[in-house]
Amino acid sequence: MPVRVIGFDGDDTLWHSETRFHVTQSDFRELIRRHVPDADVDAKLNATEMRNLAVYGYGVKSFTLSMLETAIDLTESRIPASDLEVILGWGKRMLTQPTELLDGVEKTLKSLAAGYDLMLITKGDLFDQESKLARSGLGDLFLGVEILSEKNVDSYASIFKRRGIRPEDFVMVGNSLRSDIVPVVEHGGYAVHIPYEVTWHHEHVPEDQLPRGGWRRIDSIVALPGVLAEL
Amino acid sequence: MPVRVIGFDGDDTLWHSETRFHVTQSDFRELIRRHVPDADVDAKLNATEMRNLAVYGYGVKSFTLSMLETAIDLTESRIPASDLEVILGWGKRMLTQPTELLDGVEKTLKSLAAGYDLMLITKGDLFDQESKLARSGLGDLFLGVEILSEKNVDSYASIFKRRGIRPEDFVMVGNSLRSDIVPVVEHGGYAVHIPYEVTWHHEHVPEDQLPRGGWRRIDSIVALPGVLAEL
Repeated sequence: MPVRVIGFDGDDTLWHSETRFHVTQSDFRELIRRHVPDADVDAKLNATEMRNLAVYGYGVKSFTLSMLETAIDLTESRIPASDLEVILGWGKRMLTQPTELLDGVEKTLKSLAAGYDLMLITKGDLFDQESKLARSGLGDLFLGVEILSEKNVDSYASIFKRRGIRPEDFVMVGNSLRSDIVPVVEHGGYAVHIPYEVTWHHEHVPEDQLPRGGWRRIDSIVALPGVLAEL
Repeated sequence: MPVRVIGFDGDDTLWHSETRFHVTQSDFRELIRRHVPDADVDAKLNATEMRNLAVYGYGVKSFTLSMLETAIDLTESRIPASDLEVILGWGKRMLTQPTELLDGVEKTLKSLAAGYDLMLITKGDLFDQESKLARSGLGDLFLGVEILSEKNVDSYASIFKRRGIRPEDFVMVGNSLRSDIVPVVEHGGYAVHIPYEVTWHHEHVPEDQLPRGGWRRIDSIVALPGVLAEL
């Protein structure tokens, strides 16, 4: 029996996200180096984000709070409040920018919606993700939307159970090996990996820890219908 | 046919929440008045929160970001970064405090779980709410958990549809007239209001805008089994 349900990741699979974090992080680096010219801003921010993940979770608000903490820390509290206000503004900018779809997304999803049940399965901040989906114009194409705090075998299993989906009828499409590919294949489903131009270090998986079968890699969502036909 | 499914709100219905915001807000007021003795801190913070609601949504991270913005604004950027670091720390404190159940919650839920399907239907920050539920020890009592970015007629309707619940089989139990009572009764379900000692102004509903029937008010969750038996 062929695959019946397609799950799509949102950030960096359907719409641009990580590049926006990179743009902001580059502005942040520049701002901090005006106060501490030799600071290793990226390493410090990354360490703060990882330390805060268990308290804040993912998303732009968490990123903003971690930037503020890093800024105060690296400048030993010498940074003026007006600069921290600028950082607050960057967070708001990221939360209100238009949702910019990747090439070919709208056309491919519309054609696939005729033959498959489409779902959006994304992780991060609930409010931010719902807002991005609303601004994407894709909302009506999805039969279901799941916003998770973390994507792992348990969270996928719980979706399958609640929605009566058999793993062998399901394929997950996404840019993150860690969140979209490995847990789905481990659970008996299929996966299609579409790498994005930038990958957040946290989402990386070493090649030798990848499942041997059950997934494919393509360059663009435009190639998805062809791959699905072969599954 | 009697009610079969009970939905419980989380914050200030099962566990304490608003009092923690009040404690932090009181610390915040004191901190700001050291810089601006005559500032109307509460009005300004409330206005900032309301303005940011459409960008940040609900929750502790949003509250923390709004406190930081208000602090910079009220002091005209004169507040030192070390004070803003203190505010960041308050946010983390709120996110990591143990979940403190209201009196009678655990016993009442355990007894109701034998005769009804229990659901948690809460709004706010996904990560924070999941974390509070995990720390509450109540997780196994709920057949389903729904964390919404907003509670209104549409979001309840979507839960009913997805889970195959008829509104007339459903009762919602919560402390907020705006989020737990009005939209459920409007949709044809029942509701039980249990006021909390403090209500966030945003959740208030004028008496003349309340539905005439379909809901009851009790003083404590301990009275819930008796009221349900009469529905």
